[in-house]
Amino acid sequence: MRRFVIGQAKSLSDRTRQHHRNHRFVSLFLPSSSSASGSVSSSRLFSSASDMAGSNSSSSLPVTVQSINPKVLKCEYAVRGEIVSIAQRLQEDLKVNKDAYPFDEIIYCNIGNPQSLGQQPITYFREVLALCDHPALLDESQTHGLFSADAIGRAWKILDQIPGRATGAYSHSQGVKGLRDTIAAGIEARDGFPCDPNDIFLTDGASPAVHMMMQLLISSENDGILCPIPQYPLYSASIALHGGTLVPYYLDEATGWGLEVSEVKKQVEDARSKGIAVRALVVINPGNPTGQVLAEDNQRDIVNFCKQEGLVLLADEVYQENVYVPDKEFHSFKKVARSMGYGEKDICLVSFQSVSKGYYGECGKRGGYMEITGFTPEVREQIYKVASVNLCSNISGQILASLVMSPPKVGDESYESYMAERDGILSSLARRAKTLEEALNKLEGVTCNRAEGAMYLFPRINLPQKAIKAAEAAKTAPDAFYCKRLLNTTGVVVVPGSGFGQVPGTWHFRCTILPQEDKIPAIVSRITEFHQSFMDEFRD
Amino acid sequence: MRRFVIGQAKSLSDRTRQHHRNHRFVSLFLPSSSSASGSVSSSRLFSSASDMAGSNSSSSLPVTVQSINPKVLKCEYAVRGEIVSIAQRLQEDLKVNKDAYPFDEIIYCNIGNPQSLGQQPITYFREVLALCDHPALLDESQTHGLFSADAIGRAWKILDQIPGRATGAYSHSQGVKGLRDTIAAGIEARDGFPCDPNDIFLTDGASPAVHMMMQLLISSENDGILCPIPQYPLYSASIALHGGTLVPYYLDEATGWGLEVSEVKKQVEDARSKGIAVRALVVINPGNPTGQVLAEDNQRDIVNFCKQEGLVLLADEVYQENVYVPDKEFHSFKKVARSMGYGEKDICLVSFQSVSKGYYGECGKRGGYMEITGFTPEVREQIYKVASVNLCSNISGQILASLVMSPPKVGDESYESYMAERDGILSSLARRAKTLEEALNKLEGVTCNRAEGAMYLFPRINLPQKAIKAAEAAKTAPDAFYCKRLLNTTGVVVVPGSGFGQVPGTWHFRCTILPQEDKIPAIVSRITEFHQSFMDEFRD
Repeated sequence: MRRFVIGQAKSLSDRTRQHHRNHRFVSLFLPSSSSASGSVSSSRLFSSASDMAGSNSSSSLPVTVQSINPKVLKCEYAVRGEIVSIAQRLQEDLKVNKDAYPFDEIIYCNIGNPQSLGQQPITYFREVLALCDHPALLDESQTHGLFSADAIGRAWKILDQIPGRATGAYSHSQGVKGLRDTIAAGIEARDGFPCDPNDIFLTDGASPAVHMMMQLLISSENDGILCPIPQYPLYSASIALHGGTLVPYYLDEATGWGLEVSEVKKQVEDARSKGIAVRALVVINPGNPTGQVLAEDNQRDIVNFCKQEGLVLLADEVYQENVYVPDKEFHSFKKVARSMGYGEKDICLVSFQSVSKGYYGECGKRGGYMEITGFTPEVREQIYKVASVNLCSNISGQILASLVMSPPKVGDESYESYMAERDGILSSLARRAKTLEEALNKLEGVTCNRAEGAMYLFPRINLPQKAIKAAEAAKTAPDAFYCKRLLNTTGVVVVPGSGFGQVPGTWHFRCTILPQEDKIPAIVSRITEFHQSFMDEFRD
Repeated sequence: MRRFVIGQAKSLSDRTRQHHRNHRFVSLFLPSSSSASGSVSSSRLFSSASDMAGSNSSSSLPVTVQSINPKVLKCEYAVRGEIVSIAQRLQEDLKVNKDAYPFDEIIYCNIGNPQSLGQQPITYFREVLALCDHPALLDESQTHGLFSADAIGRAWKILDQIPGRATGAYSHSQGVKGLRDTIAAGIEARDGFPCDPNDIFLTDGASPAVHMMMQLLISSENDGILCPIPQYPLYSASIALHGGTLVPYYLDEATGWGLEVSEVKKQVEDARSKGIAVRALVVINPGNPTGQVLAEDNQRDIVNFCKQEGLVLLADEVYQENVYVPDKEFHSFKKVARSMGYGEKDICLVSFQSVSKGYYGECGKRGGYMEITGFTPEVREQIYKVASVNLCSNISGQILASLVMSPPKVGDESYESYMAERDGILSSLARRAKTLEEALNKLEGVTCNRAEGAMYLFPRINLPQKAIKAAEAAKTAPDAFYCKRLLNTTGVVVVPGSGFGQVPGTWHFRCTILPQEDKIPAIVSRITEFHQSFMDEFRD
């Protein structure tokens, strides 16, 4: 029987939660003292205040892990978890103790952060951003020697789309209307179906958009969100923070991380039998951490399932540009739904996109959007309100989102150099994915599905019992044990599979394909050597 | 007896909440079907799914206002509320029906968004941002003709602070370490007390930082946060979204919006008698919407109170550069606390800062930080984890936050032009504040405290009974009735006091001081004429 476990902070948070549940409801605004309201005991909470008075020791500071929101305690985010903290400490120590380690640098393969590993930004995009940041440049004749003509033209066009050309002003809560027009046109060109700019909400990367939808859909722990296992831990973290229940469905490793609707159906029924109202289905396509690209047939089944079961389809499509194999192609879920004849009134669909991924990899710009369709005007108004509380996403990120959805076209001055940069990055990523996959598959007891898309490999390691016992003795999960050993021996940082979820008893890690191509051979040989000696040490 | 009321969505959300509270706790990750778990009825939630199957009408879409998170329904944000929607519709209609209105433009005085009203960005800041966005410029000789030498030097310095000079990479979850060093040095120079860069969390504006703290501190409706009334509605919105209780304390209009600790104390006692655990005190200094600047004595009392009562002091200090009167000065709460001898282990203090305000007004860049002191390492780890889930704030905003905390210095090429821009903006804001305040005080039945700081005036209108009755007939709050009339007659957008909270039976509106100076006389005469005719119509 499959069982997915997160241990840390669980018992503590349960205890705190139980305590809370003994309290009665009090409205947001505390009524005045005259209003009728019974007294409620809250000794835990009061003690923090009364203990504090007059005391000077740090132990009497009012905020403790026992008194904070248990949902925060419960949340986990492995991609920047313990192993990354260890890596950062190693990196600091390497600066002073260079000879103490069998490697001379830390190679971060833990996170999809291409430019941190040397990927260069697309020149045209950066030209436009610089001009929009400092529009006074557009009045200077020297500017024509420094920037391409189409970047200058595009900057003018964008500035004209922004009221008052004020790139330093808060925009409309959904983002600058003119930029949303551009994005909508890009989506239409991609899908061949209409897109309404009023369906676009520009956000600081995809993460805040995911949080916004979780906040909307989750009222309590009785609301369930279907997530693939393995999943990108943003989803489990966001569900934890909003107090909902993650309903797992397992991707099938044997069929290249296939998504089987029968498995999803089984999990929905199981959840419902436990009183969970399943609200939405998260699909990550191309997959993270699993790298598969869904077939269109499969997508149709998923759309039909969501339609039949009344689920919101939350489509994480941030890797839409990252497809590396000739037999697969990205199709947006909206295109699939529309081509099946399902319109705005048939299915609730949210598509997440980001400027952090693709061939551009502009993680630091924090740009992205969600396209929402199939929501009633009243619900949309609520989404708009939540967006308004944060005023707007950053304008550079908004501009960049419009650029990635409408890059240079044939005939533009930048077109050829843009295409060369783009194809150079994508073809290199494809080669890196292939090389790493082949190398991993050569390791004893390791099997690795191909990365059809996205930026990751998720190999399975059949760990010897002796290694599992050693991990138990070290009070760590066996895959984390393996990954820490790998880090300490090679400087390569990967994330244990337990951070993403995996079928119990199986062990994996996630490794990005992002180190620059000239580093790949060294990474391959370091991992290969490490694995061999690890197996020599622990082979049963 | 004072009573602060928010009506909208209340009964609906209460009903939904009651429903949820009948359900038992279910863990984040749904256990497998084999685990023991009693069945729980959730008919409301299931019906959405079963009603849906096979239906095609929009009424059967699975997400309705009845099924979404009631906390979202409960949240309100007046600064972009109904009156702004009306203004946007008017603005669209003005384009085609110019002659239908007694004004030719909408003047947005609803929000602190200086650049949307024509304020120009600080040249030096934008030069540095453009160079960091497109570092290839730094290798070109023409660049020296287009950018100041110190902007070029600063861009190099910043790029050297960013690992791999990668402005397109995710940074450390708290923000680029080198930029935090710069900010910490700026805080030390401001306060004369040490600042640890590891206490700084860079954020996309101040709003996400406020949300992060509310998320940490609020576990349930039994957790109370003290907020000034009137308050900036980010606070009420964030408390609502996180399910806590806003404990109001009233600023005293008669003493220039004074903050009296006796009033805060009374409200804390009242809250505690109702079973609320008061966790934190929000202070906005300079005040929003009220514009007062706290005296240092008063700040000491507040610090002592928080210390005695074991409250986290959440200091909204985003207007720290906006002080307009010679008899007042900004002092950070950290400086005040440290000068009283309270150290890291004595008091929990969070200071919020933003690049959106000050003389720079870079709202669209979404930069800001919070400085947290007095939290245990375990709690800090939890804050770090929550920051990590969103990866990092946008790098341009991070860079800008470092620039505003460390602007050009004497001797730098840009220093004089920078100072001229800065002082030009601040002195103009001071003049605008004075002119508007005097004009408002001349209106029949209107009294207006001076704007000592921040960007707002918050005049009180003694509305005639006849106007109040007319508002009741129109099913709107009297202050909203006045503001809508003002908008429809003059095109000037202000926010009704009810969006910020006010002593019941008093009516106010918030008006920014941000329209460019050449527009102020027209605004004054429009408001004066409108008010006179409004009073002529409704005078008792």
